[in-house]
Amino acid sequence: MSSDSQVRVTVWNEGVHEERNHPEWIREIYPRGMHGAIAEGLAEHLPQARVRTATLASTPDHGLTEEVLADTDVLLWWGHAAHEQVDDAVVERVHRHVLGGMGFIGLHSAHYSKIFTRLLGTTCSLAWRNEGERELVWATDPSHPIARGVANPVVIDKQEMYGEPFGIPNPDEVVFLSTFAGGEVFRSGVTYRRGQGRVFYFSPGDQEYPVYHHPEVRKVLANGVVWAHQPGLERLTGDALGCTNPARRF
Amino acid sequence: MSSDSQVRVTVWNEGVHEERNHPEWIREIYPRGMHGAIAEGLAEHLPQARVRTATLASTPDHGLTEEVLADTDVLLWWGHAAHEQVDDAVVERVHRHVLGGMGFIGLHSAHYSKIFTRLLGTTCSLAWRNEGERELVWATDPSHPIARGVANPVVIDKQEMYGEPFGIPNPDEVVFLSTFAGGEVFRSGVTYRRGQGRVFYFSPGDQEYPVYHHPEVRKVLANGVVWAHQPGLERLTGDALGCTNPARRF
Amino acid sequence: MSSDSQVRVTVWNEGVHEERNHPEWIREIYPRGMHGAIAEGLAEHLPQARVRTATLASTPDHGLTEEVLADTDVLLWWGHAAHEQVDDAVVERVHRHVLGGMGFIGLHSAHYSKIFTRLLGTTCSLAWRNEGERELVWATDPSHPIARGVANPVVIDKQEMYGEPFGIPNPDEVVFLSTFAGGEVFRSGVTYRRGQGRVFYFSPGDQEYPVYHHPEVRKVLANGVVWAHQPGLERLTGDALGCTNPARRF
Amino acid sequence: MSSDSQVRVTVWNEGVHEERNHPEWIREIYPRGMHGAIAEGLAEHLPQARVRTATLASTPDHGLTEEVLADTDVLLWWGHAAHEQVDDAVVERVHRHVLGGMGFIGLHSAHYSKIFTRLLGTTCSLAWRNEGERELVWATDPSHPIARGVANPVVIDKQEMYGEPFGIPNPDEVVFLSTFAGGEVFRSGVTYRRGQGRVFYFSPGDQEYPVYHHPEVRKVLANGVVWAHQPGLERLTGDALGCTNPARRF
Repeated sequence: MSSDSQVRVTVWNEGVHEERNHPEWIREIYPRGMHGAIAEGLAEHLPQARVRTATLASTPDHGLTEEVLADTDVLLWWGHAAHEQVDDAVVERVHRHVLGGMGFIGLHSAHYSKIFTRLLGTTCSLAWRNEGERELVWATDPSHPIARGVANPVVIDKQEMYGEPFGIPNPDEVVFLSTFAGGEVFRSGVTYRRGQGRVFYFSPGDQEYPVYHHPEVRKVLANGVVWAHQPGLERLTGDALGCTNPARRF
Repeated sequence: MSSDSQVRVTVWNEGVHEERNHPEWIREIYPRGMHGAIAEGLAEHLPQARVRTATLASTPDHGLTEEVLADTDVLLWWGHAAHEQVDDAVVERVHRHVLGGMGFIGLHSAHYSKIFTRLLGTTCSLAWRNEGERELVWATDPSHPIARGVANPVVIDKQEMYGEPFGIPNPDEVVFLSTFAGGEVFRSGVTYRRGQGRVFYFSPGDQEYPVYHHPEVRKVLANGVVWAHQPGLERLTGDALGCTNPARRF
Repeated sequence: MSSDSQVRVTVWNEGVHEERNHPEWIREIYPRGMHGAIAEGLAEHLPQARVRTATLASTPDHGLTEEVLADTDVLLWWGHAAHEQVDDAVVERVHRHVLGGMGFIGLHSAHYSKIFTRLLGTTCSLAWRNEGERELVWATDPSHPIARGVANPVVIDKQEMYGEPFGIPNPDEVVFLSTFAGGEVFRSGVTYRRGQGRVFYFSPGDQEYPVYHHPEVRKVLANGVVWAHQPGLERLTGDALGCTNPARRF
Repeated sequence: MSSDSQVRVTVWNEGVHEERNHPEWIREIYPRGMHGAIAEGLAEHLPQARVRTATLASTPDHGLTEEVLADTDVLLWWGHAAHEQVDDAVVERVHRHVLGGMGFIGLHSAHYSKIFTRLLGTTCSLAWRNEGERELVWATDPSHPIARGVANPVVIDKQEMYGEPFGIPNPDEVVFLSTFAGGEVFRSGVTYRRGQGRVFYFSPGDQEYPVYHHPEVRKVLANGVVWAHQPGLERLTGDALGCTNPARRF
């Protein structure tokens, strides 16, 4: 996977930590924002992809207009400090596009975003501890398209700990399991199908650590984009997402 | 299953078809409302259960106050004509109680209710045709607790057809599959776990046909209640549903 | 799917019905055997595929030597009258190749083959009735790669009825559900992952009816081949399928 | 769970390490064998259970005759050094009883037993390292019947490391995830339904460490027995496990 692919990607990041300069070293590790680093990593692995970025401050609609979403094969989402500031109408629109066939990749604290909890239907709560612990990301099946070609484990020197219990529905697939120096465990890479859309959640990545520069994390995200992209799929829109009332035929 | 059990059940029905006398024969087949017939069926099979009912018009809060839900082990839900009139705060409350451990059984057109789509995260759309067709309800595994002791198939002489594609996430279990005289098929009995709560959806049951008097349908619902009830479970409330921040221990 | 693909396919058919001329019209509907008709259908949809066939009588090893399997991306399997005559060593070999990453498509009465029950671990028993009933094959999700571009439903005028309960493990995906004129239902298209291999079972297809000439059935099988094929996957062999004993690294 | 229950349990242990006095301290930690310690733990939590034990050397049939199995609700299985010495006919018999409704709990190196790989259909291979590392056993959902009332995590001071990738089919439920001092991770508690039988695999437990004396491990096993037991289930035997040929009814 993560081969050449003409996929249309939108990387969305609330961008609030960058704006607030919090932590104060964020501009050193993410001079173009986390979205910039993520987009850069995708471009490395998917040179034919068309990658754009948007943030909470983008206008109109946080950069997620009907036109942008209709032109997006896979949407990546990073959010943390401003979940509540995301407009409900935009969340509804993104939700509709995922069900219609747009891929969605939730990143790190996006576990608590409106769109992710809307897609999964549960709390998505977890245990956390931010002490810069070493995280090891293990593949349960190294041949899974998202894990293929990725180091096993991926070693991340410093990360926020995310631990079980993770309040999510039983995933379709558990691709990655992480362990932390403190002993905790987390289902750090899980997949779901929602409507026609493919959903991947990947927990590594935090505003305090340069995780989105990590070459193996970048490969996972590129693989995730290729996996969530369904070339040739006819996206469902409008009434096509609703009930039908067929006549008696047989 | 469906043995004696001191379970606390609340049967919720919007009650709008009954109020509007629509169809005009509804008071003949459901003189005490569909909720009345459902409650009667549960009482037959679960004589030690404590069964109450509530409707959209119940006050306050459609009869679903914090106190009622905290005192409910399993909630059954029938809705069709008035999904939008259900207060969002009540939906949020029911959702929270399911994640905390209350069982939930969605009935027939509840597939489109706010609470069901909130729990599942998808459109939950389907194909339908109301021509009073014969429905056969088959168990994929007759030993499943919800199917045990139930005729296989259950023969329902007249029912609205509900057909695939059914826009739901991949169920944890497909307990029943229905076929219709017109040839269609439907995953008519599916289960999910959401948080600590067990969710069962069962499609037979419509305001135009006396399905909730059918002895086998009544047995399915009683089995469903016993299955969704988790005696001894500590219900989670408030902060216990959120994230935790453990200190480093190991 | 079912686009151009340089996949290496082996269609295995026990070939016993053809040899015994049973039913007596089998040579009319399958002059080159069922395997011949299946291979022909695949070649139509996948012109760049390399499709070969083999039967129980093929020598050596029913045509399924180590060399043939190592050179096969996807194996299709039809068997009915001679399951017991398949050599256990060949079954073990096929099993090993599936776990190593070869795709496997079980057809119709292959539900009872040694290799299929070995892969699934259950009885795989079902209900059956051979009266040439109309079968309707419905997609639960028409956008699934195996269902894409296929009529929904596929109408098969005459088929043997296969019905629930089907003694299989909970599938990873239920792609197709069939209904029959007699009212029964069957999970007629199901997928599993086993080791690195992708497994698809598709029930339509019987020695008495010309099902493998049905254009929609041919499209399903071609889609199934493309789905089960994992280009770029490194097949695991020998010790790579066993346990490992890593040194302490972290 | 793990409350009073009149369940009939058989604890099977090959008993070879005990017989060979290997490791040489095994008789100190397991004076009545691992099966003895396991049975003792079950009796503590399930005083009304009837627990018996059997070993490879038991006669006839390693103690697993048709009569014993028909009289067993849940079978626990420990094996390591002598998988190949288990008679194939006995494996077939146990397999048949599980599909008919007997619960099965595989313990530690039983991952490689004939019966476990027969039930799952895959290699069941894993990574291992025996250096007496600390294992932490985390519940993904502490309200699961098998995890209820169990410390989270269970801390096991010294254990053999079992790590991913674990060559199993996608489990119905992942109840426990273990981390090890060396950083590895393992799906240490997984459930499957196979036919009418419930299957639970739990990895902690090794001949070199006194794990089956650990109070929390004992509680997990008792919970597992109660979970795998299906009171009132009609066990299927003989032809009832095979195909049926219903007449046309509808």
